[in-house]
Amino acid sequence: MQNEIQIRLNRIREKMREENIEACLISSNVNLFYASGIIFSGYLFFRQTGESLFFIKRPQGITGENVFYIRKPEQIGGILKELQIAEPETIWLEGDEMTHSEWLRLEKVFPGSKAVNSTTALRQVRSVKTAYELELIREGGRRQSEAFRVFPSLYKPGMTDHEFAVEMEYEIRKRGSLGIFRIFGQSMEAFMGTVLTGENAGAPSAYDFALGGQGLHPSIPIGQSGLPILSGQTVMVDICGNFNGYSVDQTRIFSVGKTTPEAIYAHQVSMEISDTLAEMGKPGVVCEDLYEKALEIAKKHRLEDSFMGRIQQASFVGHGIGLVLNELPVLCRKNKEILREGMTIALEPKFIIDKIGAVGNENTCIVCENGMEKVTTAPEEIVLLT
Amino acid sequence: MQNEIQIRLNRIREKMREENIEACLISSNVNLFYASGIIFSGYLFFRQTGESLFFIKRPQGITGENVFYIRKPEQIGGILKELQIAEPETIWLEGDEMTHSEWLRLEKVFPGSKAVNSTTALRQVRSVKTAYELELIREGGRRQSEAFRVFPSLYKPGMTDHEFAVEMEYEIRKRGSLGIFRIFGQSMEAFMGTVLTGENAGAPSAYDFALGGQGLHPSIPIGQSGLPILSGQTVMVDICGNFNGYSVDQTRIFSVGKTTPEAIYAHQVSMEISDTLAEMGKPGVVCEDLYEKALEIAKKHRLEDSFMGRIQQASFVGHGIGLVLNELPVLCRKNKEILREGMTIALEPKFIIDKIGAVGNENTCIVCENGMEKVTTAPEEIVLLT
Repeated sequence: MQNEIQIRLNRIREKMREENIEACLISSNVNLFYASGIIFSGYLFFRQTGESLFFIKRPQGITGENVFYIRKPEQIGGILKELQIAEPETIWLEGDEMTHSEWLRLEKVFPGSKAVNSTTALRQVRSVKTAYELELIREGGRRQSEAFRVFPSLYKPGMTDHEFAVEMEYEIRKRGSLGIFRIFGQSMEAFMGTVLTGENAGAPSAYDFALGGQGLHPSIPIGQSGLPILSGQTVMVDICGNFNGYSVDQTRIFSVGKTTPEAIYAHQVSMEISDTLAEMGKPGVVCEDLYEKALEIAKKHRLEDSFMGRIQQASFVGHGIGLVLNELPVLCRKNKEILREGMTIALEPKFIIDKIGAVGNENTCIVCENGMEKVTTAPEEIVLLT
Repeated sequence: MQNEIQIRLNRIREKMREENIEACLISSNVNLFYASGIIFSGYLFFRQTGESLFFIKRPQGITGENVFYIRKPEQIGGILKELQIAEPETIWLEGDEMTHSEWLRLEKVFPGSKAVNSTTALRQVRSVKTAYELELIREGGRRQSEAFRVFPSLYKPGMTDHEFAVEMEYEIRKRGSLGIFRIFGQSMEAFMGTVLTGENAGAPSAYDFALGGQGLHPSIPIGQSGLPILSGQTVMVDICGNFNGYSVDQTRIFSVGKTTPEAIYAHQVSMEISDTLAEMGKPGVVCEDLYEKALEIAKKHRLEDSFMGRIQQASFVGHGIGLVLNELPVLCRKNKEILREGMTIALEPKFIIDKIGAVGNENTCIVCENGMEKVTTAPEEIVLLT
């Protein structure tokens, strides 16, 4: 693990050099875990060279040469001075993660430094996974896929979308999913995922999810809405797996009895898009090109009006994934970022079928030299619930 | 509901007048829900008088005279101008909730206004519940207590803390708990609650929870750690209920076979503290006095070294609760805030017993004229698991 952390720190430091940043202070849980291997209440400080310093408020009991217990961030300056570490000219702070109040407070800890927002740069670094991370993601994919293979057997006729969802949540928790997953974006919220059927699949979402659903209660407008699952309708199951810190996204479609020919057709188109993008998704490909290709295929089949939503459409077909559910890059219109080897992408071409539900799969994929490798492997055809 | 929203807005406006704030812009989900009854991606704007204006990015389909669809916050200024609403001299923004980047962006939307951090003021307003909110909290307490009464029957000999936790989560989800709950504080994370046994009960937490546990994986160091529950040990079950948007906190203690006399003794002391504070907790009482009274009782029984933690102790015995799990006020050392009628408090005196686990209950209570009313009503004695 020590070696792995070194690899990650080297990547962060390379980015620091590119952007002329002398020092970095990390306080968000995700970046602490990425850059140190542990989560604590406090701050991780490092420069372009030298050891990482741990300024820890909680938990008690962490030992090491570079560990300094503090009660408040204002103590950091004094400790750095004692260590004869000069105040950096520029310092990275996580401006899209910490609150405004926290920023103001930390900025004052380094009065002689120019504070620069590190969030995008750190998300870019995290977007390309190390070999070790890829193994964890493959493991997560395997374990989540095993759960998805069992999900259809949990259905009982007459269930509502929520009743079915609760059975699947229970199954994946029993299999060791940690339950929680992290979402980037202050106002993004979800429980373990979404299970959408019938009209609820196309309900415009209050959140920045392509398909969200109305939810069970206005206080959390996301996911299943308590609808009975009717014959001929589809059930879109998008339950996240997190077996080792890394989120794995997979969506599969079930139907109660055979669904309509249009739904089956659109599902085939979604698989055509998915396979085409997976083949096309090599290092160097531009993100928007993947989205435009997806849209082109949807148009070829005259399905563009129901692609990625209906009342509310998203110009998007996938997203990075890792320690956070929604990482970089985003496969969306106008995004000029390019794919790089070792990126992990949740590829999710989906269609809304009026009164029926949603169709389309989602797979977590690794960008490899020759295209994308799927780590989520549950059967992709629509599974009949009986 | 329209009337309820009016009551809440009146309270917010009273606070605005006290603090000389002309206008308020809300964008966090909790405060949007509190001040408008719905959650959306966008901004709610209101002044000391007049109607609330809704600037909405998502979801599509909300109608009303005061609804304005926008793509970005920069459009708000133009719309206000068209409506001949003068730029306010002072405007509230949620500085402890929004990220630094968001603050910078919104501040520019009101170039002639002084932006003031509204977070604490809005948390203070939310801390005193309306009659309608109290009814929801009572309902939540009833439903959560029903689940807690069933929890002991879900235990099977040989279970680990996690296996038992998963059964209880499943039970409360089947009963309609929305699963998710909201925590204030950027770096606070938890799934549905914590289930602590043996040594894990006293594990110092990385988060700002009094008792947290080590968790199943270093990526999320909170809660059960996969330990088998041994004979004589206690299981502290602190699983949150959220049946209607309002979090309800309740903790109960189970034990596998009879636990030790010291554990039973400390549990009785915890109930003595709880009952004393509930009786003492009338409007006008100072928060720190409640904490000091709790500590005094712990000391009287020579249990101060294990009160609210052991390796890592919290100078704290309870917290406000509502739409967010940890609301104001906090019953802790040095907090001079006073209780007010209609506040809701999670009262949680707890002790750590070495090698055994934790004891003590947690109850969600309403501050009434004559003391605190408990809304969580599962049996308070240690329940034997068989």
